[in-house]
Amino acid sequence: MKAVRLHDYHQDPVIEEVPEPTAQGPLDVVVKVGGAGVCRTDLHIIEGQWADAMQPALPYTIGHENAGWVHEVGSAVTNVAVGDTVILHPQPSCGLCRACRAGQDMHCSDGYFPGLSDNDGGMAEYLLTSARACVKLDPSTRPQDVAALADAGITAYHAVRKAVPLLHPGTTCAVIGAGGLGHIGIQCLAALTATRIIVVDRNPDALKLAEQLGADQTVVADGGHVDQVLELTDGAGAEVVLDFVAEQGAENEGFAMTRRAGSYFVIGYGGTLTVPTLDIISTERNIVGNIVGSYNDLAELMVLAQAGKVTLHTKAYPLDGALEALHDLDAGEVRGRAILVP
Amino acid sequence: MKAVRLHDYHQDPVIEEVPEPTAQGPLDVVVKVGGAGVCRTDLHIIEGQWADAMQPALPYTIGHENAGWVHEVGSAVTNVAVGDTVILHPQPSCGLCRACRAGQDMHCSDGYFPGLSDNDGGMAEYLLTSARACVKLDPSTRPQDVAALADAGITAYHAVRKAVPLLHPGTTCAVIGAGGLGHIGIQCLAALTATRIIVVDRNPDALKLAEQLGADQTVVADGGHVDQVLELTDGAGAEVVLDFVAEQGAENEGFAMTRRAGSYFVIGYGGTLTVPTLDIISTERNIVGNIVGSYNDLAELMVLAQAGKVTLHTKAYPLDGALEALHDLDAGEVRGRAILVP
Amino acid sequence: MKAVRLHDYHQDPVIEEVPEPTAQGPLDVVVKVGGAGVCRTDLHIIEGQWADAMQPALPYTIGHENAGWVHEVGSAVTNVAVGDTVILHPQPSCGLCRACRAGQDMHCSDGYFPGLSDNDGGMAEYLLTSARACVKLDPSTRPQDVAALADAGITAYHAVRKAVPLLHPGTTCAVIGAGGLGHIGIQCLAALTATRIIVVDRNPDALKLAEQLGADQTVVADGGHVDQVLELTDGAGAEVVLDFVAEQGAENEGFAMTRRAGSYFVIGYGGTLTVPTLDIISTERNIVGNIVGSYNDLAELMVLAQAGKVTLHTKAYPLDGALEALHDLDAGEVRGRAILVP
Amino acid sequence: MKAVRLHDYHQDPVIEEVPEPTAQGPLDVVVKVGGAGVCRTDLHIIEGQWADAMQPALPYTIGHENAGWVHEVGSAVTNVAVGDTVILHPQPSCGLCRACRAGQDMHCSDGYFPGLSDNDGGMAEYLLTSARACVKLDPSTRPQDVAALADAGITAYHAVRKAVPLLHPGTTCAVIGAGGLGHIGIQCLAALTATRIIVVDRNPDALKLAEQLGADQTVVADGGHVDQVLELTDGAGAEVVLDFVAEQGAENEGFAMTRRAGSYFVIGYGGTLTVPTLDIISTERNIVGNIVGSYNDLAELMVLAQAGKVTLHTKAYPLDGALEALHDLDAGEVRGRAILVP
Repeated sequence: MKAVRLHDYHQDPVIEEVPEPTAQGPLDVVVKVGGAGVCRTDLHIIEGQWADAMQPALPYTIGHENAGWVHEVGSAVTNVAVGDTVILHPQPSCGLCRACRAGQDMHCSDGYFPGLSDNDGGMAEYLLTSARACVKLDPSTRPQDVAALADAGITAYHAVRKAVPLLHPGTTCAVIGAGGLGHIGIQCLAALTATRIIVVDRNPDALKLAEQLGADQTVVADGGHVDQVLELTDGAGAEVVLDFVAEQGAENEGFAMTRRAGSYFVIGYGGTLTVPTLDIISTERNIVGNIVGSYNDLAELMVLAQAGKVTLHTKAYPLDGALEALHDLDAGEVRGRAILVP
Repeated sequence: MKAVRLHDYHQDPVIEEVPEPTAQGPLDVVVKVGGAGVCRTDLHIIEGQWADAMQPALPYTIGHENAGWVHEVGSAVTNVAVGDTVILHPQPSCGLCRACRAGQDMHCSDGYFPGLSDNDGGMAEYLLTSARACVKLDPSTRPQDVAALADAGITAYHAVRKAVPLLHPGTTCAVIGAGGLGHIGIQCLAALTATRIIVVDRNPDALKLAEQLGADQTVVADGGHVDQVLELTDGAGAEVVLDFVAEQGAENEGFAMTRRAGSYFVIGYGGTLTVPTLDIISTERNIVGNIVGSYNDLAELMVLAQAGKVTLHTKAYPLDGALEALHDLDAGEVRGRAILVP
Repeated sequence: MKAVRLHDYHQDPVIEEVPEPTAQGPLDVVVKVGGAGVCRTDLHIIEGQWADAMQPALPYTIGHENAGWVHEVGSAVTNVAVGDTVILHPQPSCGLCRACRAGQDMHCSDGYFPGLSDNDGGMAEYLLTSARACVKLDPSTRPQDVAALADAGITAYHAVRKAVPLLHPGTTCAVIGAGGLGHIGIQCLAALTATRIIVVDRNPDALKLAEQLGADQTVVADGGHVDQVLELTDGAGAEVVLDFVAEQGAENEGFAMTRRAGSYFVIGYGGTLTVPTLDIISTERNIVGNIVGSYNDLAELMVLAQAGKVTLHTKAYPLDGALEALHDLDAGEVRGRAILVP
Repeated sequence: MKAVRLHDYHQDPVIEEVPEPTAQGPLDVVVKVGGAGVCRTDLHIIEGQWADAMQPALPYTIGHENAGWVHEVGSAVTNVAVGDTVILHPQPSCGLCRACRAGQDMHCSDGYFPGLSDNDGGMAEYLLTSARACVKLDPSTRPQDVAALADAGITAYHAVRKAVPLLHPGTTCAVIGAGGLGHIGIQCLAALTATRIIVVDRNPDALKLAEQLGADQTVVADGGHVDQVLELTDGAGAEVVLDFVAEQGAENEGFAMTRRAGSYFVIGYGGTLTVPTLDIISTERNIVGNIVGSYNDLAELMVLAQAGKVTLHTKAYPLDGALEALHDLDAGEVRGRAILVP
């Protein structure tokens, strides 16, 4: 089969023929890929930023945001059958450790991340995953329409879900970044809360889209944006700040926009937070880490998606056009999410 | 009456005669002080560290950790009567704002902090406070025995109380600092959880006391302590770290001791936390601010104290000996808490 | 001033002249009534059903669902001023007991309920209440438009608010009764969750309204309704059942509609629940009591109302027409809520 | 191998030879039984009380409370190895349904209950279970010492764990029944909370044991016990009532002992709760179902047991003495728990 393989860091991946994966273990599932999202993290992988943390043996197949149809199942798989339409949790998990048993699949002590860790990903015709990663979908679903929910979506939903108990009517949620993750987060906030949503982004076009998706107010990130958010909240700041950027200064601005007794959610990454402990305690603010989400998070998000409450802007590329998609993404020329379609 | 008054920053306070306070408003309460704790924050006030934040008009009376007997009540006070033994929440609150109505007195939009903000404190014979600040005690309680719970105690208890849901059997809680607040925190942990308690401190004597109070393991903070905590937790770190120091590097060490999906509680202050957002999200760790506590926190802590589950080491000084107490504290010569007794 | 006074049980109240109330205590507030809701509970009071529980000295003024304008304030009132538009929490509370300090005003150890307990209510030109009961509104609000939120609204909102954490996407909430409280509850559910809402009522017209307000599916309560709800949930039942009726058999039907590990919320009253403990434990179901709500609940509901997310059907009557309103309600001839307007 | 097999309801089981089970599926685990608890539910099974609900094909092997050593594992088992000492969660679960993934193994949509459902139990030399049911223990643990925690223990612990957030210092927890489950529950309460524990039982000897295990006060259930609990709580009742009996009237007494805004936990079964919905709503009380517990509950309980914080009174019988053990239990002649030891 064809696959998009990274041979060397700092060089374009190569589209080449490799053997199809097969189900070896009793819980293995092979999926025929119907849509594989192209993510900024793929650019970071190519640049070698994840080399130390993940140590994949090169060459390997990238692509960690996948949906498709079940092609083959191991002998003990009971939750899906050949032909089922599925979206895949990006981290197959063991189901046996305390984290898995507490509903925190993303903290599985034995988890891995195909396309990121040392396991082949989904920019290929077929992908090997495991039973616990498969979320079964309505057969009418087109995988390419939902694939981006498998990583960008679950991450945004997970953070919003954790914030919901803090966002009763009368509160404000500030969202930093209305891009790939942010525009899903805004829709999740609108579906699950009645909070006031203020969206901050450098790009006025992204803010226009944000308004259509549920933002109550928007602020251009032009240098005066922290002050503007404070003004919009009577000087107090937002009860919750969801920071989908968390680099290039956004991280410290996000904390500055957070109200006394409020919570600053870190979802993006790249920057360094620098904050005096006096500022943390004198206002009793929290800084909340967020990573991917649980299987149940993804399943719940699919309910919202299938009800039309969360929609995605996508641009399809053939699998052979993977390099074009990666280049377009790098050049900022993809509106919404690029999806490889076989 | 006599009072310990700060006339100029960087100079010793003066013990002098001032008029007794009287109840003017219908909810005012005047308390005859039976015990006034001497706190490191008092040294910081004298050094001017709180001048900008609190802007008190000098001279004023310091002392923010008080217990005593009700001396006079305003016309609308119904919860205490003259003669009642009381400990005082350090922040009188309005009872009308959203925070007060949600059980978060310390975030009252109209709160103040006698002895710290521009209001006379309790290093005096009498103190003016309000009805909502009074926790009624068993008449047999000696105010000087419990006064230190009014600020050091409530702060430690509040943090532990927030951590309890995270500390099921099988978890580890690392406590940084076994001093004034820490030694109360250890007792609260032992009373409210079955977690394993690891205490870290520079002072081997403090660690000995910690063992008597409930620590399961102790680690001398000698440079290798982060590694030692990691070793004691199979390399993973503690589910909760309670940092009663949060300065001089403890703040970044505390975060480093925190397990994946765990929470680092900031209670002390003075240092600056510097942490890449990648480290926050890749492990989904939280940084949790803590400040004082609610009225109900203080009332619950008094239940533990009156049941003998939390005890304090104190050293009594007469009100006239206030300067000696402050100097002893500054010189590190107070074991436990110095308490002024009239 | 004119007031609607109950002189004898089982007889119509009398509209008569009584002295205007005045602020005597420092926290008293006198409100000029702008809207007083007429509630089924008023019929129950007249019938003597609350006589034993509340023991009011007759005659007294009824009316426990009020909004208006502040007319006079006691010396210590700081949260409202003469002329402010307000809606009133139905239970003035002390602000000093543990319940008040934990945000549970409705469990105040010293609370009372004007128009129900031995205190004059709001079917009059003026009403005496206290500072802690006043929720300040935008001055443009017409009290008669929101008065019904003061009791029917807060009760429905409080129950929904407690249910929200159980109602993630993919769940079902069954609502029994789409009348006065139920039609507010449906709107709150739609505003605060993405759950599927199934509404059960005897009245097809009420179900039509329910659909407009956010119901996803409706079921006529014609005897086969428990089976229908089970069918709509694949035989499993609803994660949450909100029972706004809880009499005439609805109470046991409601429990029967509740899914394994689910929760049956009792909000209405009048019936008797009879359930084998084996049925409770073998499925681990919960039965959840609900009464009125907190001050913050009412404040949050007013945010929804002022944003147009919760609207009320009301029919205005002049204060002189109170008996007509009560008779119309008793005869089932009021669509929405009857409101007395001065 | 030898096994205790039920051939006909209302007749003694038969100890007879049957084939040893073997691991057939990849996740199967065969355990050499080291201790099998004899439970009142076994008597109920023999009497046919579970016949309709569970519909086992007779004959089958009873025994649902087991610990031992791993004897054989299927090809995909990774969490335990041959020779490991284990205690068994009583309900093998799928690990794939929403309940399993939310940490609620006992609500697994595909769970079963060996020794109760149509699957052979553990009163035998070997037992077939699955990987997800195995909790690995310190190799020094004697299975017969802990077996009773596998069902009685997990059930008591699960209920206490749910109650902990309601039991802050200053509250009261009333425990009805200090027998097999109750005496474990009392120890869990003492380990995890600082609440006041009042224990109610008909048997003064059981109350003496309760005092040793952590009860603060005890009340003989002699008819005046509801009043006594109310007196001990200033007429208000307990914030939490844990009812390990829930039959013969205890169920309605338990609700009557529950404080306004409190929660009545049903853990035992057999009786019928009859309560006017007015009583539920006017006090906003909750009735909370409880069944077994999660895998993590069992793992946490084993931490308490291995730390000596929960201990069991047991009486060992050889497997051949199973009928004697059942008869002794029926005759009330077992102090603590009867355990079959091979």
